[in-house]
Amino acid sequence: MMNEKLLKLLTGVQNGTVSVESAMKSFGGLAYEDLHHTKVDHGRKIRKGLQEVVFGEGKTLGQISDIVTSMSANGDEVLATRIDASLGEALCRSFPLGRYDDLSRCFMVMKKKRRITGKGIVLVVSAGTSDIPVAEEAYVTSVFFGNRTEKLYDVGVAGIHRLLGNMEVVKKARVIIVAAGMEGALPSVVAGMVGVPVIGVPTSVGYGASFGGLTAMLAMLNSCSTVSVFNIDNGFGAAYYATLINRL
Amino acid sequence: MMNEKLLKLLTGVQNGTVSVESAMKSFGGLAYEDLHHTKVDHGRKIRKGLQEVVFGEGKTLGQISDIVTSMSANGDEVLATRIDASLGEALCRSFPLGRYDDLSRCFMVMKKKRRITGKGIVLVVSAGTSDIPVAEEAYVTSVFFGNRTEKLYDVGVAGIHRLLGNMEVVKKARVIIVAAGMEGALPSVVAGMVGVPVIGVPTSVGYGASFGGLTAMLAMLNSCSTVSVFNIDNGFGAAYYATLINRL
Amino acid sequence: MMNEKLLKLLTGVQNGTVSVESAMKSFGGLAYEDLHHTKVDHGRKIRKGLQEVVFGEGKTLGQISDIVTSMSANGDEVLATRIDASLGEALCRSFPLGRYDDLSRCFMVMKKKRRITGKGIVLVVSAGTSDIPVAEEAYVTSVFFGNRTEKLYDVGVAGIHRLLGNMEVVKKARVIIVAAGMEGALPSVVAGMVGVPVIGVPTSVGYGASFGGLTAMLAMLNSCSTVSVFNIDNGFGAAYYATLINRL
Amino acid sequence: MMNEKLLKLLTGVQNGTVSVESAMKSFGGLAYEDLHHTKVDHGRKIRKGLQEVVFGEGKTLGQISDIVTSMSANGDEVLATRIDASLGEALCRSFPLGRYDDLSRCFMVMKKKRRITGKGIVLVVSAGTSDIPVAEEAYVTSVFFGNRTEKLYDVGVAGIHRLLGNMEVVKKARVIIVAAGMEGALPSVVAGMVGVPVIGVPTSVGYGASFGGLTAMLAMLNSCSTVSVFNIDNGFGAAYYATLINRL
Amino acid sequence: MMNEKLLKLLTGVQNGTVSVESAMKSFGGLAYEDLHHTKVDHGRKIRKGLQEVVFGEGKTLGQISDIVTSMSANGDEVLATRIDASLGEALCRSFPLGRYDDLSRCFMVMKKKRRITGKGIVLVVSAGTSDIPVAEEAYVTSVFFGNRTEKLYDVGVAGIHRLLGNMEVVKKARVIIVAAGMEGALPSVVAGMVGVPVIGVPTSVGYGASFGGLTAMLAMLNSCSTVSVFNIDNGFGAAYYATLINRL
Amino acid sequence: MMNEKLLKLLTGVQNGTVSVESAMKSFGGLAYEDLHHTKVDHGRKIRKGLQEVVFGEGKTLGQISDIVTSMSANGDEVLATRIDASLGEALCRSFPLGRYDDLSRCFMVMKKKRRITGKGIVLVVSAGTSDIPVAEEAYVTSVFFGNRTEKLYDVGVAGIHRLLGNMEVVKKARVIIVAAGMEGALPSVVAGMVGVPVIGVPTSVGYGASFGGLTAMLAMLNSCSTVSVFNIDNGFGAAYYATLINRL
Amino acid sequence: MMNEKLLKLLTGVQNGTVSVESAMKSFGGLAYEDLHHTKVDHGRKIRKGLQEVVFGEGKTLGQISDIVTSMSANGDEVLATRIDASLGEALCRSFPLGRYDDLSRCFMVMKKKRRITGKGIVLVVSAGTSDIPVAEEAYVTSVFFGNRTEKLYDVGVAGIHRLLGNMEVVKKARVIIVAAGMEGALPSVVAGMVGVPVIGVPTSVGYGASFGGLTAMLAMLNSCSTVSVFNIDNGFGAAYYATLINRL
Amino acid sequence: MMNEKLLKLLTGVQNGTVSVESAMKSFGGLAYEDLHHTKVDHGRKIRKGLQEVVFGEGKTLGQISDIVTSMSANGDEVLATRIDASLGEALCRSFPLGRYDDLSRCFMVMKKKRRITGKGIVLVVSAGTSDIPVAEEAYVTSVFFGNRTEKLYDVGVAGIHRLLGNMEVVKKARVIIVAAGMEGALPSVVAGMVGVPVIGVPTSVGYGASFGGLTAMLAMLNSCSTVSVFNIDNGFGAAYYATLINRL
Repeated sequence: MMNEKLLKLLTGVQNGTVSVESAMKSFGGLAYEDLHHTKVDHGRKIRKGLQEVVFGEGKTLGQISDIVTSMSANGDEVLATRIDASLGEALCRSFPLGRYDDLSRCFMVMKKKRRITGKGIVLVVSAGTSDIPVAEEAYVTSVFFGNRTEKLYDVGVAGIHRLLGNMEVVKKARVIIVAAGMEGALPSVVAGMVGVPVIGVPTSVGYGASFGGLTAMLAMLNSCSTVSVFNIDNGFGAAYYATLINRL
Repeated sequence: MMNEKLLKLLTGVQNGTVSVESAMKSFGGLAYEDLHHTKVDHGRKIRKGLQEVVFGEGKTLGQISDIVTSMSANGDEVLATRIDASLGEALCRSFPLGRYDDLSRCFMVMKKKRRITGKGIVLVVSAGTSDIPVAEEAYVTSVFFGNRTEKLYDVGVAGIHRLLGNMEVVKKARVIIVAAGMEGALPSVVAGMVGVPVIGVPTSVGYGASFGGLTAMLAMLNSCSTVSVFNIDNGFGAAYYATLINRL
Repeated sequence: MMNEKLLKLLTGVQNGTVSVESAMKSFGGLAYEDLHHTKVDHGRKIRKGLQEVVFGEGKTLGQISDIVTSMSANGDEVLATRIDASLGEALCRSFPLGRYDDLSRCFMVMKKKRRITGKGIVLVVSAGTSDIPVAEEAYVTSVFFGNRTEKLYDVGVAGIHRLLGNMEVVKKARVIIVAAGMEGALPSVVAGMVGVPVIGVPTSVGYGASFGGLTAMLAMLNSCSTVSVFNIDNGFGAAYYATLINRL
Repeated sequence: MMNEKLLKLLTGVQNGTVSVESAMKSFGGLAYEDLHHTKVDHGRKIRKGLQEVVFGEGKTLGQISDIVTSMSANGDEVLATRIDASLGEALCRSFPLGRYDDLSRCFMVMKKKRRITGKGIVLVVSAGTSDIPVAEEAYVTSVFFGNRTEKLYDVGVAGIHRLLGNMEVVKKARVIIVAAGMEGALPSVVAGMVGVPVIGVPTSVGYGASFGGLTAMLAMLNSCSTVSVFNIDNGFGAAYYATLINRL
Repeated sequence: MMNEKLLKLLTGVQNGTVSVESAMKSFGGLAYEDLHHTKVDHGRKIRKGLQEVVFGEGKTLGQISDIVTSMSANGDEVLATRIDASLGEALCRSFPLGRYDDLSRCFMVMKKKRRITGKGIVLVVSAGTSDIPVAEEAYVTSVFFGNRTEKLYDVGVAGIHRLLGNMEVVKKARVIIVAAGMEGALPSVVAGMVGVPVIGVPTSVGYGASFGGLTAMLAMLNSCSTVSVFNIDNGFGAAYYATLINRL
Repeated sequence: MMNEKLLKLLTGVQNGTVSVESAMKSFGGLAYEDLHHTKVDHGRKIRKGLQEVVFGEGKTLGQISDIVTSMSANGDEVLATRIDASLGEALCRSFPLGRYDDLSRCFMVMKKKRRITGKGIVLVVSAGTSDIPVAEEAYVTSVFFGNRTEKLYDVGVAGIHRLLGNMEVVKKARVIIVAAGMEGALPSVVAGMVGVPVIGVPTSVGYGASFGGLTAMLAMLNSCSTVSVFNIDNGFGAAYYATLINRL
Repeated sequence: MMNEKLLKLLTGVQNGTVSVESAMKSFGGLAYEDLHHTKVDHGRKIRKGLQEVVFGEGKTLGQISDIVTSMSANGDEVLATRIDASLGEALCRSFPLGRYDDLSRCFMVMKKKRRITGKGIVLVVSAGTSDIPVAEEAYVTSVFFGNRTEKLYDVGVAGIHRLLGNMEVVKKARVIIVAAGMEGALPSVVAGMVGVPVIGVPTSVGYGASFGGLTAMLAMLNSCSTVSVFNIDNGFGAAYYATLINRL
Repeated sequence: MMNEKLLKLLTGVQNGTVSVESAMKSFGGLAYEDLHHTKVDHGRKIRKGLQEVVFGEGKTLGQISDIVTSMSANGDEVLATRIDASLGEALCRSFPLGRYDDLSRCFMVMKKKRRITGKGIVLVVSAGTSDIPVAEEAYVTSVFFGNRTEKLYDVGVAGIHRLLGNMEVVKKARVIIVAAGMEGALPSVVAGMVGVPVIGVPTSVGYGASFGGLTAMLAMLNSCSTVSVFNIDNGFGAAYYATLINRL
């Protein structure tokens, strides 16, 4: 905020021509709760229109429990990703309303009924069977954030007729997430066929020169068909981003 | 397309219950013109709703001229990216209706008046002054595809008040493209502040351990704020993708 | 398929000058079975003349069992690669006709008698003793696909007389697969001596600057003797490719 | 060669039961001419059935001229790859029977009439227009070595109907070379559709995270469709290898 | 030491114009104790003004115990970093005055009361909750070396208001250590706001294209705000360096 | 800034208990001048106590001239780094008070007399003769920012007596910058001998596996002697940082 | 061997002017024993003057036992490196004359008395305590091959006086092996001080940006003091090479 | 040097039991001449027994001239490597006794007659014709340092009979330097055949995945035949090292 604007704003407050409420709003969406190890970003719902989600990797059970408690107290639902099975069970014991899904490795405390807020269908596609865990993280996240969400799995380029035979499903979608490992070619092929945004999620599926997904990621970044790319195995990020698009 | 469906379709055609036109449509958007060195994808406008654009790098003047001629004959406007100054001049001589812009390195044959087809504003942000050529490629492309487009340059994180002082511009946008080199931190910061899709374009600006933009690209892929990422210096791709989003 | 051809085909069907069967054939080899998690590509035998093989890595016991069941029901034999010992045992319990080979880590359900369909001998060479598991994956696959297959192990360049002393075996082969880790030099040396296609398979054998087989892979790609290269430890792919050549 | 065999061979020669000619043959194909800077491998035609080719990169005009002279004196035709235009002109002046092709950057001294020795068609496919120089190096080499050779250019995955619309050409081939840069996806797609060997040649076409063709190369090595891979821009090697296959 | 100076020094000693003590001092701070596996650098306190610290990784219990004994015998306090929990317990049994801290993975034998020798406050900042172990290694080390040390955790750029809301704490510090994983953007942002030295410590927190902290490290090295960088997870080094600065 | 604090501040302004001036100060140091291509950060002197410096790489003559004009108009001195000789000459023509130094590639508009504001000596050390340009960038910057600065060049570890023979110079320094390419060992050796902060600047000097300075940079990051590291060839950054330390 | 020479040799044998024994010698040192999984290179002692050593990594107990049996039957002593403790115990049970050393991870079957065949002293130096296992592999190998061998451990550059204080030991050596991890600077420093060959062995000791020893390896390859380099952790290779030098 | 020894030495000097000369000798070989930009290491001849050589890359004509003058004044011969042709000519003009060799890119001021100080033959081998410049740098250096030196060029593994046909030359050598680019396999093959030290010099010859010699370098480091490795294109270092060995 430049000096002149700030000066005008503060002078306005001093003069009474700008109310404190209105001035506050210029700085809005800045609330958080300080758990010391974590500063829970309750303001994100205001700033971004989507609540915070817990990234579980590298956090202890105690830390996650504190955060879940804080979010619940704030009236939020909870989605925690990258939760190992044993951690998931422990969370289910602590939070009986929660549920753990071991395919997507997500822990959730959700209201029964999803309110559909997305305008169209988010389609989650996987190239192979082994990419399903990443695809499911995207699927669960997309559902959590109120999108009608569909799946189409194991339609990679080695047998492209499996994709061609499902073009109806593909053509209905408003946003498409494609999870693919190995050579990561599927997002390019899909994006060449549709006119909606395609989000590529490279997966760590592969061996040798796949370098844990690096090859798939680089391939997507070099796509000749205009694909946006997320980090390796980042099903959550892709679905969060699909949500940002699907509510436009 | 699976066997049963195909069988049904062809049997329908045979029986007369499916017209050839309707069957054709199931395979629609497949036209192209074959210049031998290039197969110009006239069907893309049907398949994707956006016409083809010429990627100039590695193509000869003869090849580009052939393509421009083919597209013009097809009634399309022309946008050719990654055109060196000398190539640009030669194209201007061959196509007097064309125009070359040396900041963005684009050659264009466009109708006078842009029809605005995007629903909101696409904002192009650059972290530094040196990122401007990439940002301009995005800007030119976004305008070409019918988006109201604005710019905000040199607002990188070394002096974050320059961004904070322009939040009004930022808050108005429906899609935001952020071009940044060096440590590539700006897209994360912007995405933490807004609720619309942010597209990160790493640039090759930097030296030493920037590795020609690799560091910026990796940083964006690891963003804690959900940013979609394109290839290094790919201003065109980012704007094309912004267009796909902005017409939703 | 271009518009004109498609138009002609469909018009032919409508006119009765093209039969549905013949039209079907233009799209042939497109069958698959949808297990939801997996779309089993039964059409591959028609398209490529070789049936599908199960890549076991990253698949659950349940998923593999479903696929084996589907393939068996389709009358196919089964080869599943990258099966851990414990998974192999479980599959043997479920499919008593199956057999698990722990050196190559393959599970197979095969008819007793191999029909030899390859025209010549496929030779599998290993540079060292530690490369044998990869060589055996190639050997088992080559046998599965009907090739007369021979082995020559531990003839690496540190004692090149071991190779020179076996040139008869080498000279008889119609296709040669060479598995080598560390500096990956053996395929170059072999290819310098024979006039048949040599397929290099880098292995992850080595330590330090072998980077899990990367060095061997790069060395083969830079061979001065014309070697084709497959992914690290991809004994299966090499033998599948040898089969494609050996049946020509 | 093991001691016993060698002992037997030499004893046979001593005893007169093995002729010198026959013993020579056990060591055959070992001739070369020593130009000091270069040892021209005239024996390669015997060992491998294909004559040597000159790799021009990094050699001086004088060195190349010496080699061309040596090969011509030996009655061989000449193919020299990676020859810059200026070097090509100089060679044409020195060897008036030679011809320089600037698209493929090859210099050739060839007999008028090609003897077709390959059994089927070698098809050279390029993903984009910019990949043509590499594809042409493969095309020229394939023709040089006596293969009926066809081309199919600019059929990359961004508009896959361009490939689908040319399946007849593809289906006729006995060996297929696919040159592709950027994400390198085309060889996978082609290999998924045919039952003949597909040879992938990554090209250095691309920018940013294509890393001079590394991404395309890695993608091909990770193909889910069994593709053999050559070094970046190595059109020559791919065609040489296709020749080895096509004469089987 | 150049010949002339040395000559002068030795001649001085010979002449009696330079005392042995004074000559010794020219070579001072060179004492060590030889445990054979380790040469404990007791002279470091003289040379550098800070005592040696034990880097535990890769050392056996026996080796560490020997070193601790040697240092204690020399009257030094002990700080051993990178000590696994089981090793820490064993050390506590052997050295009852010692204490093990499992968050920072440090073992210490310290005098009760810290003497504050640093001139100002060292502030340890973490971008996320998962970066805390590295931040704590820095915190413990900073306290060990006599700095007044404060913490500010989980203030990363995804919610930059959490940092902005704690500027008082930030502004008070004389040296700031910032531990951040993923895109490693926080040190740049902090350094853009303050006029004191900021030390960036990339952490291995992240997944996929974070490459175990490499991305964060590269980002910090490319900072547009002048940040000094240490090795990934090197909380110790950062705090040791902060100590060197803070006592100036 | 958290909501409560902000609320209190604004309420204070409204109530008159907080003056606009005092509120302004809470947001101080936020001024910049908007040249559109560049937002000149005049507030940096307030925020950080050091004025902005122009990074010349990738900027046009026009852009740099605008910035120099803006800074001069603001009463600032000017230091522009990474200025090519031809650009430097052009700047000297435009700004007759300026001076270009071609060893360090810096352009400066400086007042005659340096005010020494640093408390001690900044020593700039180079490992080899070829590292001097980077060392000189550091030297010039250090002088520009008011440090007494000394040089010690070509004292690398291949002849370590050259360093040992200059320990007096080394021991006098309050901060030491060490520029080294190739194996980058010198900062470790220096830091093992002194008790003041050592700043390592890897240089791009070397060839082959130096990878443009990457090896030197990695070596410094792995120093066993606690060295802080800057980007390859970043002499400016090191000296800026030395200034931050030297004024403490 | 060129044709003429071979022709002459064979003709000589035929003529009786060359004896079979003498002809055999021209191909000498080519014996091996074929265990199928391994071809034991008994001829190496003749070709290279040093017997084969067993590289244990990746070999099964059965394979190693076969090799040990073969070598013992051939009258050779046995050295097997990279043997895990459990494998070592099993080998000791099978071969009661054998001995396992867990620091160097070597299994040996050796005659009681070493015959000293090396002409001078091989000195093994380690930079840190954690590098000792690699240094011990070198030490054990050097002793096995008949060198007088000495050790000097933990004399890294962080406290270079520990090296300077042991120059007598260093100056006595005829060949010096230096094992160092982290920044790998010690071989450069040692080689700057002596006139005998220094062999650098990078170790995998370190963390973060040491990349498992890659940084140390690259640093040694860029040494300004002429150091020869071996693979990461390759203590065996360094000592084998030292033996080749020390018997000259 | 440890305290006690130093104490003893200095006390000895004080007591007169140790002469200054003798004490000086304990610190001997430490002379250098300070040209400010360069500290010429005249003491190296004493410390290492071999005089300093000028590494030309990155040095200006003025700097090199100063060094040549200093070395000549000291009575040394001069070898300067990595000298571009234009620089070489300029040096020849300044130093009429000098000579420039453009194949090896070396400038020399040498006495007419070489004194042979090496005990045996140093053999320089190149894999291909393009590797000759690096091989020649090694050849020139080896001759400069008094070794009888021979060459064997273009004997790479694609036609291994060219090496086998020259085994006499190979077998005569006391030290062998092998320069090879591309897959870098030749040093392994050579080292498998001889019992003397083989020094591998990877060259930057190649393209694509040779990565400027990185692949060859990694291959040599992973050699199964015990090869010592130098930096890419470092012909000088290899020959310097060969000299250290050859005078033992």
